[in-house]
Amino acid sequence: MPEKISSRTIGRLSVYRRLLLNLQRDRQEAVYSHQLAAAAGVSAAQVRRDVMAVGYTGSPVSGYNVEALTESISRLIDAPAGEGAVLVGVGNLGRAVLAYLAGRRPKLHVAAAFDADPDKAGRVIHGVRCHADEELTGYVRQNAVRVAIVTVPAEAAQGVADTLVSAGVTGLLNFAPAALRTPEHVYVENMDMLTTLEKVAFMARSADQARATT
Amino acid sequence: MPEKISSRTIGRLSVYRRLLLNLQRDRQEAVYSHQLAAAAGVSAAQVRRDVMAVGYTGSPVSGYNVEALTESISRLIDAPAGEGAVLVGVGNLGRAVLAYLAGRRPKLHVAAAFDADPDKAGRVIHGVRCHADEELTGYVRQNAVRVAIVTVPAEAAQGVADTLVSAGVTGLLNFAPAALRTPEHVYVENMDMLTTLEKVAFMARSADQARATT
Repeated sequence: MPEKISSRTIGRLSVYRRLLLNLQRDRQEAVYSHQLAAAAGVSAAQVRRDVMAVGYTGSPVSGYNVEALTESISRLIDAPAGEGAVLVGVGNLGRAVLAYLAGRRPKLHVAAAFDADPDKAGRVIHGVRCHADEELTGYVRQNAVRVAIVTVPAEAAQGVADTLVSAGVTGLLNFAPAALRTPEHVYVENMDMLTTLEKVAFMARSADQARATT
Repeated sequence: MPEKISSRTIGRLSVYRRLLLNLQRDRQEAVYSHQLAAAAGVSAAQVRRDVMAVGYTGSPVSGYNVEALTESISRLIDAPAGEGAVLVGVGNLGRAVLAYLAGRRPKLHVAAAFDADPDKAGRVIHGVRCHADEELTGYVRQNAVRVAIVTVPAEAAQGVADTLVSAGVTGLLNFAPAALRTPEHVYVENMDMLTTLEKVAFMARSADQARATT
């Protein structure tokens, strides 16, 4: 099973698959490692190693077969029965994330959303039904949910993470600007927009100043 | 000038500052390195190195002075006259990003938004005026904009990035699921939600399987 594969490798494979799905849509049959490399911003040698790691066996001389390689990657990345994630926090950001993810991947979807505001319960937002926060633990346990997206405000994030983890979630995509404390077996990715934007602004200014002085 | 400071350091400083601003709001006067460390998910030793790097000179024995340290960090991170970024692509995601960033940092704000749909021109969304795409180059040049947020669909992202870079932008925060080709002097950060979620789902499944077999 996929235990030895790192999250970085999965990230690259996910990017390759996105390009492959686009090529399928355009009815292209073959793709070269350098095309996948350009899409992911890595070297062609890296692509060839990754392709070997997923067990694709075709020869790369005349390009990889788009359909076969897509299948090899999907077999590794996707949960065979599909993965239903939950999203907690249906504010502006939560709604945008729901809109963005809707219908993108057949094997990975948001199955239910939760919000502290009971008025939102029962509503369907971008195809996902919203529930009251009180139902979160029960839902996660009953449906053996492993993946959660956290889009609550910073001050609510740790409490939500604790609830999710004690109900059985083992993977968190955290948009709240807060560092979550979680047990070691839980995998957390943070998408911190403000910090990332501050980084970009600083680096942009440095680049600008370096150019101005040379 | 800040040329030798890495983007990772800036990322940590930005996280410390967020905590410091919260402490200021709560009228706390002192903070210990281990508190900053916990907020950023790094070691206290790392915090002490970073604090030295920003030129804060107080002794850490009785804690850092919250106000003085905030100022030291802000002096490094912020553009003295403030930074006005542009956002391109006012769909669901662009609107959520505007809502999220509105009023968060006095020295870093979105000054204008742009969209291919001319019907959106003239509207004010979360305090930011929307313009037609045709005005993008002129606006960036006239206002010496250095930072741009890209929230257009994948197929439009490279074109938008090319326009921004040739108008003078040196930093891009890219939400579009596409690897952008940019000149070396341009700093790019990608926030790729779908790939990140696929990573989380895979790692969550691996964690779950590892626990099931032990």
